[in-house]
Amino acid sequence: MLRGLTRAGLGDIGSNERFIELAAQYGFQSVDASAKELVDAHGVDGARALLEKHGISIGSIGLIVQWRTTEEEFRAGLSGLAAHAEAAAQLGCTACTTYILPSTDYPAAHFMALATRRLRTCAQILGAYGVRLGLEFVGPHHLRTRWANPFIWTLQETLDWIDAIGEPNVGLLFDAYHWYTNELNVDDIRALRPSQIVHVHINDAPDVPVAEVLDNERLYTGEGVIDLVGFVRGLRDIGYTGAVAQEVLLPKPPAESPEKLLERSKAGFDKVFGAAGL
Amino acid sequence: MLRGLTRAGLGDIGSNERFIELAAQYGFQSVDASAKELVDAHGVDGARALLEKHGISIGSIGLIVQWRTTEEEFRAGLSGLAAHAEAAAQLGCTACTTYILPSTDYPAAHFMALATRRLRTCAQILGAYGVRLGLEFVGPHHLRTRWANPFIWTLQETLDWIDAIGEPNVGLLFDAYHWYTNELNVDDIRALRPSQIVHVHINDAPDVPVAEVLDNERLYTGEGVIDLVGFVRGLRDIGYTGAVAQEVLLPKPPAESPEKLLERSKAGFDKVFGAAGL
Amino acid sequence: MLRGLTRAGLGDIGSNERFIELAAQYGFQSVDASAKELVDAHGVDGARALLEKHGISIGSIGLIVQWRTTEEEFRAGLSGLAAHAEAAAQLGCTACTTYILPSTDYPAAHFMALATRRLRTCAQILGAYGVRLGLEFVGPHHLRTRWANPFIWTLQETLDWIDAIGEPNVGLLFDAYHWYTNELNVDDIRALRPSQIVHVHINDAPDVPVAEVLDNERLYTGEGVIDLVGFVRGLRDIGYTGAVAQEVLLPKPPAESPEKLLERSKAGFDKVFGAAGL
Amino acid sequence: MLRGLTRAGLGDIGSNERFIELAAQYGFQSVDASAKELVDAHGVDGARALLEKHGISIGSIGLIVQWRTTEEEFRAGLSGLAAHAEAAAQLGCTACTTYILPSTDYPAAHFMALATRRLRTCAQILGAYGVRLGLEFVGPHHLRTRWANPFIWTLQETLDWIDAIGEPNVGLLFDAYHWYTNELNVDDIRALRPSQIVHVHINDAPDVPVAEVLDNERLYTGEGVIDLVGFVRGLRDIGYTGAVAQEVLLPKPPAESPEKLLERSKAGFDKVFGAAGL
Repeated sequence: MLRGLTRAGLGDIGSNERFIELAAQYGFQSVDASAKELVDAHGVDGARALLEKHGISIGSIGLIVQWRTTEEEFRAGLSGLAAHAEAAAQLGCTACTTYILPSTDYPAAHFMALATRRLRTCAQILGAYGVRLGLEFVGPHHLRTRWANPFIWTLQETLDWIDAIGEPNVGLLFDAYHWYTNELNVDDIRALRPSQIVHVHINDAPDVPVAEVLDNERLYTGEGVIDLVGFVRGLRDIGYTGAVAQEVLLPKPPAESPEKLLERSKAGFDKVFGAAGL
Repeated sequence: MLRGLTRAGLGDIGSNERFIELAAQYGFQSVDASAKELVDAHGVDGARALLEKHGISIGSIGLIVQWRTTEEEFRAGLSGLAAHAEAAAQLGCTACTTYILPSTDYPAAHFMALATRRLRTCAQILGAYGVRLGLEFVGPHHLRTRWANPFIWTLQETLDWIDAIGEPNVGLLFDAYHWYTNELNVDDIRALRPSQIVHVHINDAPDVPVAEVLDNERLYTGEGVIDLVGFVRGLRDIGYTGAVAQEVLLPKPPAESPEKLLERSKAGFDKVFGAAGL
Repeated sequence: MLRGLTRAGLGDIGSNERFIELAAQYGFQSVDASAKELVDAHGVDGARALLEKHGISIGSIGLIVQWRTTEEEFRAGLSGLAAHAEAAAQLGCTACTTYILPSTDYPAAHFMALATRRLRTCAQILGAYGVRLGLEFVGPHHLRTRWANPFIWTLQETLDWIDAIGEPNVGLLFDAYHWYTNELNVDDIRALRPSQIVHVHINDAPDVPVAEVLDNERLYTGEGVIDLVGFVRGLRDIGYTGAVAQEVLLPKPPAESPEKLLERSKAGFDKVFGAAGL
Repeated sequence: MLRGLTRAGLGDIGSNERFIELAAQYGFQSVDASAKELVDAHGVDGARALLEKHGISIGSIGLIVQWRTTEEEFRAGLSGLAAHAEAAAQLGCTACTTYILPSTDYPAAHFMALATRRLRTCAQILGAYGVRLGLEFVGPHHLRTRWANPFIWTLQETLDWIDAIGEPNVGLLFDAYHWYTNELNVDDIRALRPSQIVHVHINDAPDVPVAEVLDNERLYTGEGVIDLVGFVRGLRDIGYTGAVAQEVLLPKPPAESPEKLLERSKAGFDKVFGAAGL
């Protein structure tokens, strides 16, 4: 497994180039970033060279397509997706991710039908470039009633949705926070095949009742109550070898410098990965 | 368009053979019946000969698979589906139909995901035998709140679901009662392509406020307030040439004999089809 | 059915704008042209206004993706396809077309597998914008042995391939020349459903043995030996209502002016459509 | 990895029950056998108990559907497939396999289109029961020209075909004999993901030039020249944990008793698995 980073929780870390440089400096091996931005800025060869120089791979790109609102917005975003997938493939990145809000103001069944078709189309385009689509179920209780109608938020529902989408390249973005807020355990991870996991997020939760855990009040890796050692051990046991990218959503920008935050993040990974024997 | 019958509204009409004979006697051209029962009873050649003798075709077979409950029930029904599809194909029937209840006790979004995958599998098996799957949206208001969670009941939702299922051989079972209870008009029919319609049901509704129309208190064709002349004209205008099968769901068995009910049904078709210039 | 034009056989007819203007002037109703070029030049509203002013619709756009060679070329072309589909949808065009060469230098079975996957991806992207993909089987005998290995060239093979591709929005580009060189008749057209036909080409063939008919020595509509009256009657009989676009491939640029060629084309359509009672 | 057996090379080993008993007796952990036959003979619970008693699992069932000839034969076989898949699922078997002949008397491209659609339908039915479909590429040179037209026989072609089929549950049946006759090496195995392999066959080849190796003159595991230690090491390295089933196709029935042949087979597995550190 690769030690990975997203920008979430690192403050204003600056350009992609700075992000890559600092990630490497603090012992990380992957960053979640836009492959297309890198290719646009450096060309394919330049972007490859930049990543290689720092020993960094791209863990995942974000899905640029808006699939949660109108057909117009969906179509508009879709027209650029192939170029993002192509850039990802050119830089060796095979993961693209999006999250599922657990409730919606649209009628739930109809929205599920629309979203199934839209995400299938996204998966088909990504698949043409060898890129997989990872769907992140989102567990915090407050979001389950945040909008008018419940949608889906459990692991099993998400696996069933992946079956409904029906494309070979769709799987999970598995986030420790949502694993925790769904009150899942290590055996739930062990029941998965590694091919079902496209990407992984890591972070930690405060010591409050699980039903009160807020999505954007996350803690840094190893600083909270989630059994992260069990989490990464479970992933290792089933043979997952991809990136585990820290994502710390916060209510407001952190006060510390990016360097301090990276140091803290590194310490968290050292603690968790060390205890897990990774 | 073919004048067609289902058993609904004809009382105890007896065996398939009697149903076919009487349908022909009263000027009908198709019946909705199990092709497999006919093939099992008469062999392929015998069943073909029986239908030909009476000038009757099979309008549609019913989907034998239970897709609305557990995975176990779904799988159990699925194992027999191919044999039903094969029999339909052998007798020249290319339509298989099922209806969509407008509400459900399952969480709606998750159920939509499960049902999408299950109906896709059904469509794929049917498709191997050249049989299409028609989905019937169900309009009556009382059923929209009959179970805990709203599902789907409109034409547009059903078309969107057909897109989500994503198989070339899935379309609509278009029922006059649901067209009426959704307060659709003839232009809504004209906006369809004939290839989107797998099968058609006809019947009539009592003169009560549309929100109070009950699903199982239907009237015989031409005896109520639905604009059935517009309905069949719309279908003709877009080039639909398949069966239009009467389906009269009633609260209790009709008092009249099957022969009387067939006579009444014939009169209704004469009136509606005549006024429509068919 | 719409009287349509491609540029093939019209000499140097100039810009899209000129093509549209002249098409209208000579009584045509559609042109095969790039929707994206029109949108890029005039904006969506401007392009729509231009088409409306002349009473011209876009019959089909060409598939810009190279699916017959390497994966690299395929991927490179694919990244622009959604923008072309989006422009087509914005201008009301729902057809995109490509042709199938009847032989190939690649091993035939492997190439069929690759091409199936590639065209499916194209169809999926087009489908997201409501655009269909029409595949043109190519009949002339000399092309069946032009490259090392026979591929496919018959109507039935193409229908079977469409089934293998398996997307609801794939159908035929039906060209009178290939209908003729495959020695098909009007009943072969009548056996089709209109939903199987995405687009139609019309043109004529010289009075030589059918095995000697060359793909790029076509005649103008109504000037040769093809039973074009039967051809368009067959299409009308099954309910095809789309564009019938003239495509006259020639060994060298025609000597006459575009205006003379359009006059001649108009006369051909008048003759054929007139005799067919269209 | 599980030590597995097929019946090929074991002489007349008798009933399924005897096959299971003997397999266990000689230290094997899986057999390739018909789950449906077992369920028909013992009921689901009885069949499960029989397998559990002997510590044997079913490695794979054979695809009962004839997809290589006419549509009639295909459809006839298809109607029974779901029951076979259901039985497999009930007994915990998730693999169904078929082989690809490297040449065909049908036109190759058209046959590829037909076979793509047919195997997709099979995969869809199997997938409804959680069963995967493994395609076996067949390497021996003599079969590449055995029928009129070359089809496919390489690993890469088969992977490309799996992409063309496009279902998530299709992968490889990887047979040591075809790996050898395609002159592949261990790195070719290491380039695969374990999820691409549905089932594995093991056996050995005589010391003759590779182009002269005959498909039905195989040797017992460890008695020939194939680098089987590298073969199973490669599979282990990528994380394959399923069955490795011996399949020894012979020109005529072996002279030795099933018990002798099982002893010999066990010795071969001991040698190969032992040397590989398994």
